[in-house]
Amino acid sequence: MSKFCPGFLTAGINAGLKEDGKKDLGLIYSQTPASVAGVFTKNIIKAAPVIIDIEKIKKGYAQAVIINSKNANCCTGKKGIEDAYEVINSLALQLQIDRSLVFISSTGIIGQPFPKEKIKFAIPKLIANSNDSKGKELAEAIMTTDTVFKLASVSKKINGISFTVSGVAKGAGMIHPDMATMLCFVCTDIKADQDKLQTILNDAIANSFHKITIDGDTSTNDTVLLLANGASGLSIDKNEVKKAFEKSLNEILLTLAKKIVKDGEGATKLVQIKVIGALTRDDAKKIADVIASSPLVKTAIFGEDANWGRILAAAGRAGVNFNPNRINLFFDEVMIMENSRPCGEKAEKKASAIIKKDEFVILLDINMGGEASATVYTCDLSVDYVKINADYRT
Amino acid sequence: MSKFCPGFLTAGINAGLKEDGKKDLGLIYSQTPASVAGVFTKNIIKAAPVIIDIEKIKKGYAQAVIINSKNANCCTGKKGIEDAYEVINSLALQLQIDRSLVFISSTGIIGQPFPKEKIKFAIPKLIANSNDSKGKELAEAIMTTDTVFKLASVSKKINGISFTVSGVAKGAGMIHPDMATMLCFVCTDIKADQDKLQTILNDAIANSFHKITIDGDTSTNDTVLLLANGASGLSIDKNEVKKAFEKSLNEILLTLAKKIVKDGEGATKLVQIKVIGALTRDDAKKIADVIASSPLVKTAIFGEDANWGRILAAAGRAGVNFNPNRINLFFDEVMIMENSRPCGEKAEKKASAIIKKDEFVILLDINMGGEASATVYTCDLSVDYVKINADYRT
Repeated sequence: MSKFCPGFLTAGINAGLKEDGKKDLGLIYSQTPASVAGVFTKNIIKAAPVIIDIEKIKKGYAQAVIINSKNANCCTGKKGIEDAYEVINSLALQLQIDRSLVFISSTGIIGQPFPKEKIKFAIPKLIANSNDSKGKELAEAIMTTDTVFKLASVSKKINGISFTVSGVAKGAGMIHPDMATMLCFVCTDIKADQDKLQTILNDAIANSFHKITIDGDTSTNDTVLLLANGASGLSIDKNEVKKAFEKSLNEILLTLAKKIVKDGEGATKLVQIKVIGALTRDDAKKIADVIASSPLVKTAIFGEDANWGRILAAAGRAGVNFNPNRINLFFDEVMIMENSRPCGEKAEKKASAIIKKDEFVILLDINMGGEASATVYTCDLSVDYVKINADYRT
Repeated sequence: MSKFCPGFLTAGINAGLKEDGKKDLGLIYSQTPASVAGVFTKNIIKAAPVIIDIEKIKKGYAQAVIINSKNANCCTGKKGIEDAYEVINSLALQLQIDRSLVFISSTGIIGQPFPKEKIKFAIPKLIANSNDSKGKELAEAIMTTDTVFKLASVSKKINGISFTVSGVAKGAGMIHPDMATMLCFVCTDIKADQDKLQTILNDAIANSFHKITIDGDTSTNDTVLLLANGASGLSIDKNEVKKAFEKSLNEILLTLAKKIVKDGEGATKLVQIKVIGALTRDDAKKIADVIASSPLVKTAIFGEDANWGRILAAAGRAGVNFNPNRINLFFDEVMIMENSRPCGEKAEKKASAIIKKDEFVILLDINMGGEASATVYTCDLSVDYVKINADYRT
């Protein structure tokens, strides 16, 4: 029952969407209208709630977000949009706030009719259940194939005044940069204009959600919303506050991003892929992305097989020009390849031990004389990933 | 014991590389020097035999190809190149042909020392075993995780004179366009210059191997070689012969390409992804590629779940601009989505029956008013794919 961000109430309940009684409906309510920044899926196929929120965010303010899991309200046409607005209006009426301040978000199966009646029916209970300590319930309500809820919160003090950044996220499958396929809602009691908030959010996402990959798929429902209600009295117009807030937001988003990869569908390992020695950051990123997305690399990691040949083969097809004879490869601190030649049995033995760990780093030095680098977080590709996704709708 | 292409002898034996006694060493020998065309991996990391063959092919002629499975001779440095040349020279000596006419090809595990001694020791037996009816043995010798050998042959008559195109291939994992990761050797008794042969080969590959995907990975050893020894007396300088040969080569390569996808690691289904109604072929191809490579689409196919939401979601992230509200989707001849809305339970029921088939077509009409289209062949992503690749080296 730890506190969520001051000035915000949250809730998570079962509204009958998940038949097993698990939570499926969440609420975020700010006691005063909050500045809002957001980042949405780049997929051309956008779910109804994404289409709606992209319109709403233009006004700059939000006071409530209602989020359901189990049904994505995607490919549901005009009806899906109308249904979502009905839910929004019903919530606005009961919270007695302007309907323009209510945002909506959905995640789950695509193409099934939106269960608006069940959701509307549950709204009074949802509101009644909300309080300042229900971050965990909110995090649980947005889970789909996630196996653990994802919540992170940090409070810091500036000249004796404290501020908080609290966030929840859901991930599991369909996770890939641009953007990571997931929902994430972050609340803070910092005071900030939408413009500045958006810039800070964009930077923080580039350093977190855009660095993770699970299966290369991008969903139709991706949404990150950041609400800032100013309850702390601290404003980011002060440089000291801005710096501290940026740091806290980065910390929260990176924590949530890592939680998402670690809980990737069927994942058993969290692996940091780092590419160094590149001429440009873009080159390094391209190589890191290809390695992090390679099914052959990911299955080798699942099999705990230090099959560095696959890592090199993946790097080689990234479309980046590098010298194939000058590569160094490390698993954590152990060099297993120098100038593109294996370092021998001893090194491979050490690497075999490292790959058995839950978390480790694969570092590839492409040795092009540059100092550019890039990092991507990935997980392994397991038998369970396939099982989960083969049976998702049944 | 069906005949291979006239004028060529082939063989496949066990040289002790595969410890279970399965065939691991193959030979193609043309009774006269043949024109040779080839296509090689675009991966920056190239195996020793690929580096060697790229040099050799510049001379235009080949008379023998020795191919081993189990060891890729990749990331083996200068030593790997030297070892491969030793094998080449040994074979040339025993066949009493010029060493410049001997090509080499390897497939298997990356980064292990090349077993040149075993191979050299087996060469006399390999030659002794060769005859005009051992296409199957050759096809078996190049298998890695393939579960069936891949051989295709066609003979046609022009004005009473017949010509033949015979090919073998191996695939299984690491299969993706540009180019499909595999080995393929095609022999014909047509007479042709290298230049013309290369052009025809490039076109045929664009219509076959560049249309298939298994897991998006591209190997370090990809090689297609086409040998034409002219034994039929028919020359492609005659237009009629050229047309007939092109058709036959296309047929053989597409047959082999489909066999590769159908035998994709762990694959249980062969699925044709066709995108129509695009403004450009490139747009159509991009969308087809993303759908064909999506782990979520591929696991849904494995689960026999007609989860069209994932197909749309994949199309939407292909980076092609289309109207998200005007999409039609078919499984075989059954329309399950019209103008981006599901066609109802009846259609979905029919789709569920189709997805249970071993082979079917997913046709996506993006309805942009264009007439451009593209086709990609893919397979499902199964539990066995992960198991095979997690345990590959052990």
